[in-house]
Amino acid sequence: MIRGSFRGWAVAAAWGIIMGATLQVHSDEGMWLFNQPPVKVLKERYGFEPTSEWLNHLQRASVRFNSGGSGSFVSPNGLVMTNHHVAADMLQKISTEQNNYLNNGFHAKHPSEEIKAKDLELNVLMSIEDVTARVNAAVTASMSPAEAFAARRKIMDEIEKESLEKTGLRSDVVTLYQGGVYHLYRFKKYTDVRLVFAPEKDIAFFGGDPDNFEYPRFCLDICFFRVYENDQPAKVEHYLSWSKEGCADGDLIFVSGHPGRTSRMYTVAHLEYLRDHSMPFILNYLRRMEVLLKTYGERSEENMRRAQDDLFGIQNSRKARLGGLAGLQDPVLFKNKRTAEDYLRKQIDSDPKMREQYGSAWDDVAKTLEAAKGIIRDYHLLERGLAFQGDHFSIARHLVRYAEESNKPSPDRLREYRLSNLESLKLGLFSDAPVYDDLEIVKLGDSLSMLMEMMPQAELTHKVLDGKSPKARAAELIRHSKLKDVAERKRLFDGGSAAIDASNDPMIKLAKLVDDEARRIRKQFEEQVEEPQRQAYAKLAKAHFAVFGDKVYPDATFTLRLAFGQVKGYEEEGRFISAMTQLGGTYEHSAKHGGKDPFKLPQRWIDRKHAINPRTPFNFVSTADIIGGNSGSPVVNTKGEVVGIIFDGNIHSLVLDYAFTDVQARAVSVHSAAIIEALRKVYDANDLADELTRGQAASR
Amino acid sequence: MIRGSFRGWAVAAAWGIIMGATLQVHSDEGMWLFNQPPVKVLKERYGFEPTSEWLNHLQRASVRFNSGGSGSFVSPNGLVMTNHHVAADMLQKISTEQNNYLNNGFHAKHPSEEIKAKDLELNVLMSIEDVTARVNAAVTASMSPAEAFAARRKIMDEIEKESLEKTGLRSDVVTLYQGGVYHLYRFKKYTDVRLVFAPEKDIAFFGGDPDNFEYPRFCLDICFFRVYENDQPAKVEHYLSWSKEGCADGDLIFVSGHPGRTSRMYTVAHLEYLRDHSMPFILNYLRRMEVLLKTYGERSEENMRRAQDDLFGIQNSRKARLGGLAGLQDPVLFKNKRTAEDYLRKQIDSDPKMREQYGSAWDDVAKTLEAAKGIIRDYHLLERGLAFQGDHFSIARHLVRYAEESNKPSPDRLREYRLSNLESLKLGLFSDAPVYDDLEIVKLGDSLSMLMEMMPQAELTHKVLDGKSPKARAAELIRHSKLKDVAERKRLFDGGSAAIDASNDPMIKLAKLVDDEARRIRKQFEEQVEEPQRQAYAKLAKAHFAVFGDKVYPDATFTLRLAFGQVKGYEEEGRFISAMTQLGGTYEHSAKHGGKDPFKLPQRWIDRKHAINPRTPFNFVSTADIIGGNSGSPVVNTKGEVVGIIFDGNIHSLVLDYAFTDVQARAVSVHSAAIIEALRKVYDANDLADELTRGQAASR
Repeated sequence: MIRGSFRGWAVAAAWGIIMGATLQVHSDEGMWLFNQPPVKVLKERYGFEPTSEWLNHLQRASVRFNSGGSGSFVSPNGLVMTNHHVAADMLQKISTEQNNYLNNGFHAKHPSEEIKAKDLELNVLMSIEDVTARVNAAVTASMSPAEAFAARRKIMDEIEKESLEKTGLRSDVVTLYQGGVYHLYRFKKYTDVRLVFAPEKDIAFFGGDPDNFEYPRFCLDICFFRVYENDQPAKVEHYLSWSKEGCADGDLIFVSGHPGRTSRMYTVAHLEYLRDHSMPFILNYLRRMEVLLKTYGERSEENMRRAQDDLFGIQNSRKARLGGLAGLQDPVLFKNKRTAEDYLRKQIDSDPKMREQYGSAWDDVAKTLEAAKGIIRDYHLLERGLAFQGDHFSIARHLVRYAEESNKPSPDRLREYRLSNLESLKLGLFSDAPVYDDLEIVKLGDSLSMLMEMMPQAELTHKVLDGKSPKARAAELIRHSKLKDVAERKRLFDGGSAAIDASNDPMIKLAKLVDDEARRIRKQFEEQVEEPQRQAYAKLAKAHFAVFGDKVYPDATFTLRLAFGQVKGYEEEGRFISAMTQLGGTYEHSAKHGGKDPFKLPQRWIDRKHAINPRTPFNFVSTADIIGGNSGSPVVNTKGEVVGIIFDGNIHSLVLDYAFTDVQARAVSVHSAAIIEALRKVYDANDLADELTRGQAASR
Repeated sequence: MIRGSFRGWAVAAAWGIIMGATLQVHSDEGMWLFNQPPVKVLKERYGFEPTSEWLNHLQRASVRFNSGGSGSFVSPNGLVMTNHHVAADMLQKISTEQNNYLNNGFHAKHPSEEIKAKDLELNVLMSIEDVTARVNAAVTASMSPAEAFAARRKIMDEIEKESLEKTGLRSDVVTLYQGGVYHLYRFKKYTDVRLVFAPEKDIAFFGGDPDNFEYPRFCLDICFFRVYENDQPAKVEHYLSWSKEGCADGDLIFVSGHPGRTSRMYTVAHLEYLRDHSMPFILNYLRRMEVLLKTYGERSEENMRRAQDDLFGIQNSRKARLGGLAGLQDPVLFKNKRTAEDYLRKQIDSDPKMREQYGSAWDDVAKTLEAAKGIIRDYHLLERGLAFQGDHFSIARHLVRYAEESNKPSPDRLREYRLSNLESLKLGLFSDAPVYDDLEIVKLGDSLSMLMEMMPQAELTHKVLDGKSPKARAAELIRHSKLKDVAERKRLFDGGSAAIDASNDPMIKLAKLVDDEARRIRKQFEEQVEEPQRQAYAKLAKAHFAVFGDKVYPDATFTLRLAFGQVKGYEEEGRFISAMTQLGGTYEHSAKHGGKDPFKLPQRWIDRKHAINPRTPFNFVSTADIIGGNSGSPVVNTKGEVVGIIFDGNIHSLVLDYAFTDVQARAVSVHSAAIIEALRKVYDANDLADELTRGQAASR
């Protein structure tokens, strides 16, 4: 299916630069920085020139969900639109055995009914400042990797602290172009976030795992929140107006959101490492979790309710990674990547000065991959916590580490315990989201079993298991721990090292037991893999600049980006797949699968079938360059009006991690018209529909 | 759950011998040979002495399903009873999109309606002859492992051929006691096997994967076939009568069936190898297949129909292996095994002669494990065919290999192509069971992807993929192969090497491409692992004989065995679980799970609820020592009458592969009374019920 589709790849092989330098840009490639928009391409390709006001408005109307996703302001009263699946984690946390908001949906008929999220932080990017020179000045050539790492961290922390103190805004120094550029991002932060509306899971995720990453689709994957300040709906200056018409086939559209992570500058060796080592390891882990959670969930409806958000996430990752691996296993991708790499190396090698400065970049990367092979498994198990899955251990580790780190000056701390992150840390740590002992035991038991499988001879494994079987040990740890109690967490947090040292909580003791080894492996990973890799890619980035100039976009890093493209169908196995689906098709799709789960429609949709205009556009695909993290991104027209919301990519788009293609790869969105039609005709939510469409008058 | 339950383990550590030598036998341990029945134990423990007539009758009424399972004759007219799940493969093969017998069940109201199975072979053990001396005489001390292997194979083949010619019966030399003993088994073979009755999958496998290996249970896991000779129902002399009362709590019962494989004599190092290498590898593979098949199946009902038999098998293996691994990961098991091993080694070491003869056994085993670590992955991928899943490759390989092997004298051939196996080979190869291209592509695509993950640098991998991605290559291979056509298979089979060499079928070419390497790795595995392991365990077996005497049973090898035990409940987490469930409980269990799949009852069961006596015993547990392969085994009382049929073990029994325990481990059976009640009251199958119970008069 994938083969032969990648004539876009040569373009993408190095941020689309080779083609940019040698030919015209022919594709809708790019996850562009708002302060480096693709002005030239847009003008040449579409005759459209975004103004700085247009860009500034879209930027400030864009919202980042810190839990991993995107959204936008869609009314002056702090109304935020995102995907149901971005909100799923939060919906799960406020749900109980009695009120399953994740499955059954929710609609606050009045602001007083809006439900406060448990631990949700939204960020709005207010300004971007280039601090590359200041960061680079702090790192000298004579420093060892470890010293360079520490020095860079120190200066980044100083810049962040300075900025926070000066502006009161959340301030993050973000690394772009693999360390080629450092920007200071200042965010307005919202932590009082309340649920306004969610549809039923059965229509939000209609078609479930079988339809995930497929097209045509019929999903109302939306959710509305409202941000509050001082217990009042926040007044926001920049919000997106609603398009009266929505978009149509062939339209130019823009996507403003937070693509999570791409690896398009990776060397061929690095892609091979991903294909042959990293991906198989992660996929084995994901399949393991999928089977575990499914087995647990199938034992009862309540079990499934408890596990389903985790399960969706795991299934989604599994499908996404399988798609990525399929891309990496296509020899055509490697051929194109190799061609691009050979071309660049030849350019660099042909100039003695460039050769001296950048020529070692590829070998430098290769060295870090060799180092990674020896470390990565233990790093995942012990530091990333794969061997200790569940909320209990994660809470215990934070408490244990915070007690130790809080005794140090902020810049010397592990990154997640610095002052700049303190509020976010506490938001998660003191959340009263439910923790289910039975599910915790299942997860931890399996993790400990995996630890025993992977490190059977390690002394640490035996200490962790304490002479018991993994399942028995997990049950003992969870049953005797008090960390489910938020007050106990606060007591240990506030009590510092003394409280931690005095604690007899078995989970705290476990976190202490593994901490030395986990920190050691983290340090090793940072010094032998992360930092030298960062340096090697910074070198490679400079090599790119030197050869191709700097009019290119950096790999995605969960920072705000602007993508663009056309509403456009595609060919698959000789069949043309239209860009748009319609509401009426939903019922046919359900009937074709016997109306059975996950193709079962909510009762409300069945009851209101005749009230709905079946010709209303429902979902559509476009060529915009998006990836995980873009979920919930607004799709706007040239007037900056909402015409849809991103919620998925098709199966062909899963390779976009590594290379752009717009032959078959498509972003999948909910159409703005379907949202209004569903709110009015299915959910009797005229209030909400009015709040959205009233903005049309304010359209600029 | 498992921990602390294994006071039976010291007994089991070495075929239950240590306790046997030093203490009284206290447990219902043992999978006994019919020619070495546990007469003493039965007499001492239960005051029962089986006569040789009793044993002979039970032996000849027992049936082996060559596809992997057990059964029994239950009427003089060739009626065979087994499990629905043993028959599932066959039910799948005769099903179509229109007639889904696997899901919907079947009942032939008249013999003329009975449906012929596509490729089912049943065996009945007619006689056992000890040929150990003759086999051992062919192997001399001066032979290398490879020579010894060849010599032993040769003599076994000679014995089999001689016997076949003399008696016309299928003749297999079976290896017992890890090579300590060789017996010649002669079987009467039935290949005209017809389906008489199957219940719906929803009641046969009620509770599905969540309830699998759990208890209490409510499953009618039965299926009836009839064997034919000369197109007439076969007249069988030995069949089991039906018990009028069935069994009750505390009753002594017997199980006659074919336990597949136990590893109770394994050394501690070998168990560690299983725990740390073998099991994690296999479980990763099983989870991979489970997710693959489930994902495929969830796309439509027809997909699920096509995949479900494979999927059940995979899920069942996954759960069984997880249970086995949980047992192996319990430190108590290893402690007991180590104690037993230390004891035996001490005995051997204390006698210079025994030390010289047997003392190296443990190190010999350890050496084979080291060798296995280097070979096993490629062996699984290339020789066992994990890299080429699906029917197409399996057919192609048989054709390619048969063409080559058939040019050699029978004893020199790979075992599966010898004359003695020719009929069984052809039965499978020329079966017209449906082969679904879409499912074949999904399976093969994923296998090739796995090959690329595991052997990315191998030249063979690149040759296999032929410059395409795994999925594209799989689609090309399946779409262009003609092997779905049975006539084409016959043509290639009959055409021999010339036909194979001339074939342009891409699947034949693929099988040829990998054959050299697959044969090489098989040879390496046989010479460095299998054969030296066989010799080491033969040595170990002799060490056991020397120290403990020979009144012990051999590890299971899918040969007929007699187990015994009591109908008996057990404690779990402080709760007592009764031995018996009743038909009425089925409805409560369904209601508790909202009547949703897999707890949905067939409509017929809902309609007939009030016709059924709810107090009828449905399933029961016993302490009999059983394992996979025993599925479908008849459970009989001291009179040799059917009181039930084995269909499962509980979760605690999954460790029986490695060690016996009867603290919580239980065999799970369908009660004979439930079978009659369901046949009469739910299925209106009085004819069948009469055929079963008429035998009561003939009871001996």
